[in-house]
Amino acid sequence: MSQLRQDPTTKEWVIIAPRRAARPHDPLRVERPPLPARDAACPFCPGNEEQTPPEIMRVANGAGWRIRVVPNLFPAVSPDGEARRAGDGVFGRMDGVGAHEVIIESPRHDARIDEMADEEVEDVLEVWRRRYDALEREPWARSVVLFKNFGITAGTSLVHTHSQVVAIPVHAPEDLRRHSVALRYFDDTGRSVYDDLRDAEVRQGERVVAEVGSMVSFAPFASRAPYETWILPTRHRSSFGRVDDAELADLARLLREVLRALREAAGDPDFNIVLASGPVADRDQPHFTWHLRVVPRLATAAGFELGSGMSINTVAPEDAAARMRDSLERSRAAAR
Amino acid sequence: MSQLRQDPTTKEWVIIAPRRAARPHDPLRVERPPLPARDAACPFCPGNEEQTPPEIMRVANGAGWRIRVVPNLFPAVSPDGEARRAGDGVFGRMDGVGAHEVIIESPRHDARIDEMADEEVEDVLEVWRRRYDALEREPWARSVVLFKNFGITAGTSLVHTHSQVVAIPVHAPEDLRRHSVALRYFDDTGRSVYDDLRDAEVRQGERVVAEVGSMVSFAPFASRAPYETWILPTRHRSSFGRVDDAELADLARLLREVLRALREAAGDPDFNIVLASGPVADRDQPHFTWHLRVVPRLATAAGFELGSGMSINTVAPEDAAARMRDSLERSRAAAR
Repeated sequence: MSQLRQDPTTKEWVIIAPRRAARPHDPLRVERPPLPARDAACPFCPGNEEQTPPEIMRVANGAGWRIRVVPNLFPAVSPDGEARRAGDGVFGRMDGVGAHEVIIESPRHDARIDEMADEEVEDVLEVWRRRYDALEREPWARSVVLFKNFGITAGTSLVHTHSQVVAIPVHAPEDLRRHSVALRYFDDTGRSVYDDLRDAEVRQGERVVAEVGSMVSFAPFASRAPYETWILPTRHRSSFGRVDDAELADLARLLREVLRALREAAGDPDFNIVLASGPVADRDQPHFTWHLRVVPRLATAAGFELGSGMSINTVAPEDAAARMRDSLERSRAAAR
Repeated sequence: MSQLRQDPTTKEWVIIAPRRAARPHDPLRVERPPLPARDAACPFCPGNEEQTPPEIMRVANGAGWRIRVVPNLFPAVSPDGEARRAGDGVFGRMDGVGAHEVIIESPRHDARIDEMADEEVEDVLEVWRRRYDALEREPWARSVVLFKNFGITAGTSLVHTHSQVVAIPVHAPEDLRRHSVALRYFDDTGRSVYDDLRDAEVRQGERVVAEVGSMVSFAPFASRAPYETWILPTRHRSSFGRVDDAELADLARLLREVLRALREAAGDPDFNIVLASGPVADRDQPHFTWHLRVVPRLATAAGFELGSGMSINTVAPEDAAARMRDSLERSRAAAR
């Protein structure tokens, strides 16, 4: 029999139904061809810098670069115009004001975060922190959405390793919902629901994937997707913009471990990484804790998910975490 | 420049960004191979009735059948057990109690709703109404989710034409959100926001796709997906379970028209159909209006959508509706 589980951070129920994994289903897998180290046709490869809009920042490497941040050539939102409400009645609208940036994470066309060196991942996260911080301080910004798409079924249009950050002039529905639940929980308990969930997961232990110093990862009790993994700091901080350098170094190592474990345990699936964070410009908020969610794309959202807003997860998070821990254990043993 | 538009039925903003359609993107299209009229290996084909769990109902055709309703062989939820809360603290859970039924819409393996005769589509909708009604009256049922998946990227695991209905012992998040916005709107205005949106769309006209008697379809102002189309009754009714036979006949013709238009105008995309409806067991609710949403799967939800809960739609609904009207006009002209 399946089980309904309630995510305490959204109050939404998820259906955990491992038996459904047996149904005759062609999982929508798309080949991931091996990549060359450089692709002359790729706008993110060195030598093609003029194919992107003018650079916002770079992490230099002599005359070259290790990371570039550029505006998205096909932006969802852009800095011109004013975030003023228009329209009337049921047709409310405003100009698509905002920022949409691409973080090119490496000059190498075939780079992957799970294969990078510690310092390379740290550099990427440092750029994430800087751009999150900068955009979150824009006076018109209400939500800053930082994410990474890996693979075609995860929405990638270019395979060269990159992440994106979008700042919008309205509150993202997901932010509104998460903050509202977290505020309710804080008023009830005086604590952050994320801190309490993390502590309960660590105490329970069964769903913990890996820990590195000040960071911990687990497949949450009410995971929406197979092998979904969250990464949280062990010390309370509401905003990712305030993470210190030591934390960033731990996060880099843990993120790489989690992505390696996912690759080994789940057959190198496509995935998204999304950041949830409170505003950096405010004082630290006791009700919210920033976190990363790694969401593999092993299942296709169908009519049930669209109509209900609920997920059916066919892999119990206990099993996902156990397999990911096993993978890490095996690769540690092999490295000895 | 893109535009932000607010859906009055959810209060959520959508990004309409037609320029983004130009980005270098391999849309995730999966071949739709031609189907035989019968497939000996298909559990939904006549002769293989014993491969499904025992029948819940059928629309008979002599000794044979035109439609069968059977329990899902791999159910997300099932009728055994009790919908009692268990677990504690941040780990709330309950047994996966509910019903998960499959509606096999035709004995023909190669049938498609857009190619069926009027009476065939009417029969399907009549079964939708009966199963929605029956499940909604179960004492433990809090939400009834009726949907259809068409194509692999829409989550289909079997190609033989079918729809599904799932009854769950908790309120679906999407129901909670829609009812809460609709109740707020009713308290502000004394009207259903769906009725007001429909009337505004019909008055405005630009996004109307087709009308048949008591039913109207339009690509809503704040469509989340390219070619998304809603179908609403012109007469207020909160529950789909109360639709009368004349309305059902109009709905059948309009649904087929919409699916034909979508197929012609958008290149036969995969799609989902989802029903939103108030409870049938209550008296008619003035704040909510049942409706169908047809959601083509022309775009892949990526990290932005997962992280923000917002959609980026690269086809303006005005353009989608114009192309769908043109398709219908052309096929009417060809039929003359």
